[in-house]
Amino acid sequence: MPASRQLHLGAFMRPVSIHTGAWRYPGAYPDANFNFGHLKRFAQKLEAGKFDAFFMADHLAVLNMPVEALKRSHTVTSFEPFTLLSALASVTEHIGLVATASTTFDAAYHIARRFASLDHISGGRAGWNIVTTSNPDAALNFGLDEHMDHGERYDRAREFYDVVTGLWDSFADDAFTRDRESGLFFDPEKLHVLAHKGEHLSVRGPLNIARPPQGWPVIVQAGASEPGRQLAAETAEVVFAAHRALDAGQAFYADVKGRMAAIGRDPDHLKILPGVLTVVGDTIEQAQGKRALLDSFVHYDSAIASLSIALGHDASGFDPDGPLPEIPETNQSKSGRERTIELARRENLTVRQLAQRLGGYGGLAFVGTPETIADSMEEWLTTHGSDGFNVMFPYLPEGLDDFVDKVVPVLQRRGLFRTEYAGKTLRENLGLPRPANRFFA
Amino acid sequence: MPASRQLHLGAFMRPVSIHTGAWRYPGAYPDANFNFGHLKRFAQKLEAGKFDAFFMADHLAVLNMPVEALKRSHTVTSFEPFTLLSALASVTEHIGLVATASTTFDAAYHIARRFASLDHISGGRAGWNIVTTSNPDAALNFGLDEHMDHGERYDRAREFYDVVTGLWDSFADDAFTRDRESGLFFDPEKLHVLAHKGEHLSVRGPLNIARPPQGWPVIVQAGASEPGRQLAAETAEVVFAAHRALDAGQAFYADVKGRMAAIGRDPDHLKILPGVLTVVGDTIEQAQGKRALLDSFVHYDSAIASLSIALGHDASGFDPDGPLPEIPETNQSKSGRERTIELARRENLTVRQLAQRLGGYGGLAFVGTPETIADSMEEWLTTHGSDGFNVMFPYLPEGLDDFVDKVVPVLQRRGLFRTEYAGKTLRENLGLPRPANRFFA
Repeated sequence: MPASRQLHLGAFMRPVSIHTGAWRYPGAYPDANFNFGHLKRFAQKLEAGKFDAFFMADHLAVLNMPVEALKRSHTVTSFEPFTLLSALASVTEHIGLVATASTTFDAAYHIARRFASLDHISGGRAGWNIVTTSNPDAALNFGLDEHMDHGERYDRAREFYDVVTGLWDSFADDAFTRDRESGLFFDPEKLHVLAHKGEHLSVRGPLNIARPPQGWPVIVQAGASEPGRQLAAETAEVVFAAHRALDAGQAFYADVKGRMAAIGRDPDHLKILPGVLTVVGDTIEQAQGKRALLDSFVHYDSAIASLSIALGHDASGFDPDGPLPEIPETNQSKSGRERTIELARRENLTVRQLAQRLGGYGGLAFVGTPETIADSMEEWLTTHGSDGFNVMFPYLPEGLDDFVDKVVPVLQRRGLFRTEYAGKTLRENLGLPRPANRFFA
Repeated sequence: MPASRQLHLGAFMRPVSIHTGAWRYPGAYPDANFNFGHLKRFAQKLEAGKFDAFFMADHLAVLNMPVEALKRSHTVTSFEPFTLLSALASVTEHIGLVATASTTFDAAYHIARRFASLDHISGGRAGWNIVTTSNPDAALNFGLDEHMDHGERYDRAREFYDVVTGLWDSFADDAFTRDRESGLFFDPEKLHVLAHKGEHLSVRGPLNIARPPQGWPVIVQAGASEPGRQLAAETAEVVFAAHRALDAGQAFYADVKGRMAAIGRDPDHLKILPGVLTVVGDTIEQAQGKRALLDSFVHYDSAIASLSIALGHDASGFDPDGPLPEIPETNQSKSGRERTIELARRENLTVRQLAQRLGGYGGLAFVGTPETIADSMEEWLTTHGSDGFNVMFPYLPEGLDDFVDKVVPVLQRRGLFRTEYAGKTLRENLGLPRPANRFFA
């Protein structure tokens, strides 16, 4: 008995895990960054669990962090998204494949072409996670001494989106007639030359690729800033949100869907999926124990830096095994400090445990039994906090297997999640309309 | 009984065929440009035939040709190379995967990263066909009003190669220790920051990916100009040559290998593979008949333009079904005109047949029985015309199946071609050394 609305689930993946201590967890695959066999296993398991999509996070530089933290991190290096997702396309059949690609450090023609190609190869399962790349180290890898400022990056992103979608529309859906008798391979009346000349980009076109099976690959965004929200309301079809609590999620949800209504877009045509770390146990205590073990693998040298940032106060002199001492007020980061102090008190954490929590993964987490995790997901869905989730697994493969084998069946039993894929394309599974070609009726 | 030297065979692929009439041939797959299932079948068949590599040709624009020719051409649109080859990587085990990528219209960091990623995904089977992109239409798709001139493109290509190979060497081969006990994921002493600032490129590094399994993906080039030959002698490991006759092939072979010896490179560390169209018949007459049928599918409107260019003379007024008339001398393209006239006389072709030959595919072709094709390949190999071939199939799948099922066994019987893959990587199968890391012993 399906509920009136169902959850959409993406898997937000780093090959080893999003959690920085995960590679040391018993049974984890520390070599997954460059072991395609592991990634294939993960994607196929997610598909068995009827996940909407596999999201590949990305960076365009080795992350800028002190060498003491860097040398302990498995998140520094991994496959490039297009090569990985294309390789996964030919060993999966249903799951969506969402690649991150930057509007600041790549060419619109390349981006349009690669997503269109991935969409053709996968039979309509590609999605583009549009990022403007805030990491200033990336600029240095692309010949720029200074990073583009935030406003300019967003202006360029908006124009870039117009060019890429325009290039996808280069050919009408029925342009390729391939009539052997007459020798006409395609109808030249159904080819449009974009001839774009704008403030940031100059791109003639046409794209040298047929219109993608989905018309356009699904447009995904994650920006939470004012221009990020507006860009999402105008263009996004999936938003990857990052809120730590239901009330903040609800406020974001209402804001973005309200912006859509204000410009005449159907609010159902955008799915808001907050990221959530899920730790599954037979009991709540067992799940909490797994998380505590996972956090304990974060090295204290890295962890204490994260705690100092969260508190706006140098925490390196604190007793690691004592409780969090009183912190003097500062002007900086008041809400972050209060949230951190509140977390320490609520869970009765030592300084070391608190630091390792923040250094490992500090965002929204559902830690409990399959039933309590399903309860939380249902609450977010039914109270308009989200349309589903981007699930992050605490360690792989066990954390992923636990979710698919134990949580998904509970969600399905409650009618909150599909038991079979509804459509062939990512767009169909997400319940999104196929965009019309802007140049051909 | 292996001969002292064996052939290396690449397949130079466009999804439908390199021949412009191929999509109309009986049994051909005219939709192969966007049908991944067909490409998967082709790659697996080539692997069954023990081919060294699958080469994907590429263009960064819809080809610049009159609309009358354009609308009849299947070569206008197809998959993008990285997405296609990555998808093929996970459904093949041995065959090399060579992608074309431009040093003029892409960033060195992206190129280094994608090839390294493809090399990891495929277990060491990636190759980079370095092109400088001579098509001026491509510039217009990348925000440039004027195309970079030839000399500048080659200067940039040389620097680009240094940067890409330097980025591949960012980590020592044994940098990633992943020691769970100590929590050390990699040894920071084995990480090199490139910090390149040159005339054309400024790239800091390091690359966010481990050193490729092959050290460096195999370096492939096709340039035949003076700077192209010198760049090949200095850097290439495979050269895709394009000579129509053995004597020209021998002269090129001697020139490039001589340049290598002059700078102290072992001439065996570069394999010269001319492109050749192969048409297989049970008799020579049957093979010639297949080719004539194939050529007949080239539309006369497109074909006559190719003939006019080859002759340096407008051929549109000639009687299509008559013999080639006397052509007055011009200053232009003398060797091309003479070669064209000689071809018409030798094969007794009408104007139409001659035009269709040139409009379909005008380069080196071996048209005959499995034995005569093997004879020609053996002659080129043993007389130092080449180290093997980049085979082009006249129509797919039949032309490919014919080569694998009929010609390969003859080559194997003569000891001229492998019966099993010798190594795991493309580099090993080509007999090329693994490059040392320039920053770490």
